Amino acid sequence: MLGKMLENVKNNHPLIHNITNYVTVNDCANIVLACGASPIMSDDIGEVCEITSICSGLNINIGTLNSNTIPSMKAAGKKANELGHPVLLDPVGAGASSLRTNTACALLDEIRFSVIRGNISEIKTLAGASAKTSGVDADESDAVNENSLESTVNLAKKLSSRTGAVIAITGAVDIIADSEKAYIIRNGNPMMSRITGTGCMLSAMTAAYIAANQDNMLEAAAAAVCAMGLCGELAFERLSERDGNSSYRNYIIDEIYNLTPEKLEKGAKYEIK
Amino acid sequence: MLGKMLENVKNNHPLIHNITNYVTVNDCANIVLACGASPIMSDDIGEVCEITSICSGLNINIGTLNSNTIPSMKAAGKKANELGHPVLLDPVGAGASSLRTNTACALLDEIRFSVIRGNISEIKTLAGASAKTSGVDADESDAVNENSLESTVNLAKKLSSRTGAVIAITGAVDIIADSEKAYIIRNGNPMMSRITGTGCMLSAMTAAYIAANQDNMLEAAAAAVCAMGLCGELAFERLSERDGNSSYRNYIIDEIYNLTPEKLEKGAKYEIK
Amino acid sequence: MLGKMLENVKNNHPLIHNITNYVTVNDCANIVLACGASPIMSDDIGEVCEITSICSGLNINIGTLNSNTIPSMKAAGKKANELGHPVLLDPVGAGASSLRTNTACALLDEIRFSVIRGNISEIKTLAGASAKTSGVDADESDAVNENSLESTVNLAKKLSSRTGAVIAITGAVDIIADSEKAYIIRNGNPMMSRITGTGCMLSAMTAAYIAANQDNMLEAAAAAVCAMGLCGELAFERLSERDGNSSYRNYIIDEIYNLTPEKLEKGAKYEIK
Repeated sequence: MLGKMLENVKNNHPLIHNITNYVTVNDCANIVLACGASPIMSDDIGEVCEITSICSGLNINIGTLNSNTIPSMKAAGKKANELGHPVLLDPVGAGASSLRTNTACALLDEIRFSVIRGNISEIKTLAGASAKTSGVDADESDAVNENSLESTVNLAKKLSSRTGAVIAITGAVDIIADSEKAYIIRNGNPMMSRITGTGCMLSAMTAAYIAANQDNMLEAAAAAVCAMGLCGELAFERLSERDGNSSYRNYIIDEIYNLTPEKLEKGAKYEIK
Repeated sequence: MLGKMLENVKNNHPLIHNITNYVTVNDCANIVLACGASPIMSDDIGEVCEITSICSGLNINIGTLNSNTIPSMKAAGKKANELGHPVLLDPVGAGASSLRTNTACALLDEIRFSVIRGNISEIKTLAGASAKTSGVDADESDAVNENSLESTVNLAKKLSSRTGAVIAITGAVDIIADSEKAYIIRNGNPMMSRITGTGCMLSAMTAAYIAANQDNMLEAAAAAVCAMGLCGELAFERLSERDGNSSYRNYIIDEIYNLTPEKLEKGAKYEIK
Repeated sequence: MLGKMLENVKNNHPLIHNITNYVTVNDCANIVLACGASPIMSDDIGEVCEITSICSGLNINIGTLNSNTIPSMKAAGKKANELGHPVLLDPVGAGASSLRTNTACALLDEIRFSVIRGNISEIKTLAGASAKTSGVDADESDAVNENSLESTVNLAKKLSSRTGAVIAITGAVDIIADSEKAYIIRNGNPMMSRITGTGCMLSAMTAAYIAANQDNMLEAAAAAVCAMGLCGELAFERLSERDGNSSYRNYIIDEIYNLTPEKLEKGAKYEIK
C-alpha cells in the first residue's frame, strides 16, 4: 500500500512549488528530484500565483520567514486552494517568535492545508496547547514517548478535525493522523537530528507524495514519513568511521534516490491506531 | 583549442560577480572555485556596480527572481557593459511566468550579453518562438533531437545575430552558436537532470571561462559546456551502487576540480556546423 | 585547555542565532550542529530580537548584505548586548564595496562585539589601515607571512584594544588576539581556500564556542580556529585521487562532527605571543 504511493510519484513526477527558507532549499530541491518529482522555487508576489498554477502541489515552509514572502505564501496558498491543488504547511519554529506563530496561525485561517508537518513543539503551538519551542527543534519536555503517545495521537486527530488537514508530527516516533485514523511510525535514526533540514526535506517530499496521490492524502503522507525514516536508517548503515553529518545528509538523499516501492513496503515500520 | 580555454581560467583566475538564485548558489560558488576562478555573490542595489567593477565577469541568473534584485541586475549589467566586462544571462524558467519572461526580455533590451545559456524551452521563449516551459525544466515536446537539430541550430544562430550574444542551448545535445558557427556537443549524462542546478553551475562556470577568454567567447562557452558534460560522464563512472543524486552532485564538482586542459581536450565530443 | 572549550560546547549545546548570507548558510548550519551546538537562522526585523533572546550567542555575517537585513543586524546586536550574549562579526568583503565597509563600521560603532573574525584584508579595512580586498578573499599583497607576523599581531592587539573584541585574523597563519595576548595558529591546509565558506563556517562555529565559554572568549575563539584548521588537515588526509573541493567540504564538516576534546588538544599547533 505505502509502496504504491511512491510508485505514483515516480510515474506522475509532479511539479512542486516551494516557498521555503534559504537554509535548506538546495537539499529540498534535490530530495524532490531524488524521489521522482520536480521542484520549482519561487516566492515573489509577482509570480507565485502563475507558478503554483503550473504545479501539482505547493509546499509552504516558514523557516526563514520574512515580511516580503508572507503575502506570497497567502496568495499562492489561495490560488492552490482555488485550483484544488494539495498544499502543505511546515510551520518551522512556530512558538519561537510571535512572527512565526502569528504567521502560521494566519496561514491556517486563510488557507485550507492538505497536510501540516512539524515537530511536536510546533504542532502543539498551532493546536493552542502550551508548548516550549527551542528554536527550530522540539523541546525535550515536549518529546513524544510511549507515555505521551496516546495523548499526542488525540491531539493530532483533534487538530486534523479542526483544520481538515492531515497532521504529521515527526520526531523519535512519528504520528500521521487525520481525524479518525493515525499511523504510528517507528522508522528513523537519532542522528537525523544532527543534520539541518531533515524536517524541511521531508515536507518538500511529502508535498510530492500528496500531489501524486490526491485521493489518498493520509497514506501518501505516511508513506513519505516512512520513506524518510527508512532512508535515514539505510544511510546510517552506510556510514564509515570518518563520516559525519555532512556525508550523512548526502547518503540520505542518495537512499531516497535509490528507494523502490518494494524496499519501502518492506522497510516501513508502522501500526495504525 | 578547448583545453587552452581552461588553461586561461586556471592562469588568470578571474573574479566573477554572480547575481543568482538562493537554491543553487552554494554549488555555483564551489564550481567557480573548482575550475580555478573566484566567485563573489552580491545583489544589493547599493553595491552591485562597485562589486561588478572589481570583477572580470558577471553572471545574471533569474532562478528565484524577486522585485528587489531586478534593478540590481540591470544596474550591474549596464556597468559591466560600460566597462567592457563579459556578461552572461541564465533565463531560468523564462516562459514559466510573465515575471520571468518579461524580466528576461527587459534585460535583453537593456544589456548587451556575451552569452545566453538556457534550456531549449527558455531559449525558444526568448526567441519569441512558441515554447512550452515545464517549470525550470525544458518541456519534452521541445527536446532537441537529431530531427530538430538543424532547425535548432538555425534558431540559435538567428538569436545570436539579433542579440550579439553567443547562444548556448543545453540538454541531451548541446548547441553553442554565434551568428555563423555552431558547436554541437554530445558530452553529458542523463542523470545530470536529476540534480538541481547543473544548468546554474554551468552558467556560473561559463562566466568564468568567457572572462578568462574575452577574445574568444564562442570557443570559451563551448569549452565550458564540454567540461560540464565530460565531468558529468566521469562522475557517473565513479558512482557506486548506493550513490544517488546528492553524491553525484559532489562528484561532478570534484571532477571539475580535477579537470586538466589535456583531459578536456581529449574528452570533448563535438562537431562544428 | 583548548579541548575543554570544545567539551563545553558539547555539554551545553548552545543555540546560536545566525544572520548570515545565503551562499554558505547550509554549511554554517551543519557545522554548528556538527560541533555540538544548534543553529537558528532568522533575519527579519519583525523577529530578530525575540529570536536572539532565546539564543546564547549571535553570529552576524555580511556576506550577501542587503538593505533589508542591516536594520535586523543592528537590532539583534543591540538586544544581544543588552542581554549580555556574545556577538561575533564576520565582515565578509569589507573593503570590496562602500556598502560593506560602511556597514561593518556602523555595526562596530553601535554594537559591542565579543569576536571579530575575518581575513587580513577585511580586518585591515576595519582597522583603518590601507588594505586591498579582492572580492571576498584576502589580497595576496596583504598575506600574513613570517615577515609581517609581528606587525599583524600588533595590529590585532590594537584593534582589540579599541573595540573590546577578540580579533581573529585567519589565513595561512591565524592570529587570535585580545589587547594583551595573541595565539599564533598554524593548523590548516591551503586547499581550504578552494571551498566557499570556510571562513563563514568558522565564524558560525566560533560563535558556538564563545557562547559555551563566556568567561574565556580568547581561548574559545582560538580553540575554534584550531579545530577548523585541524579538521582541514584531517579531511585533506582523507581525500582520494578523484575527490575535489566538494567532497573536501563534506569531509571537513564530518571531521568537526567526529572531533573530540582529546584530538583537538593533541592536534592544535599554536604559540602564544
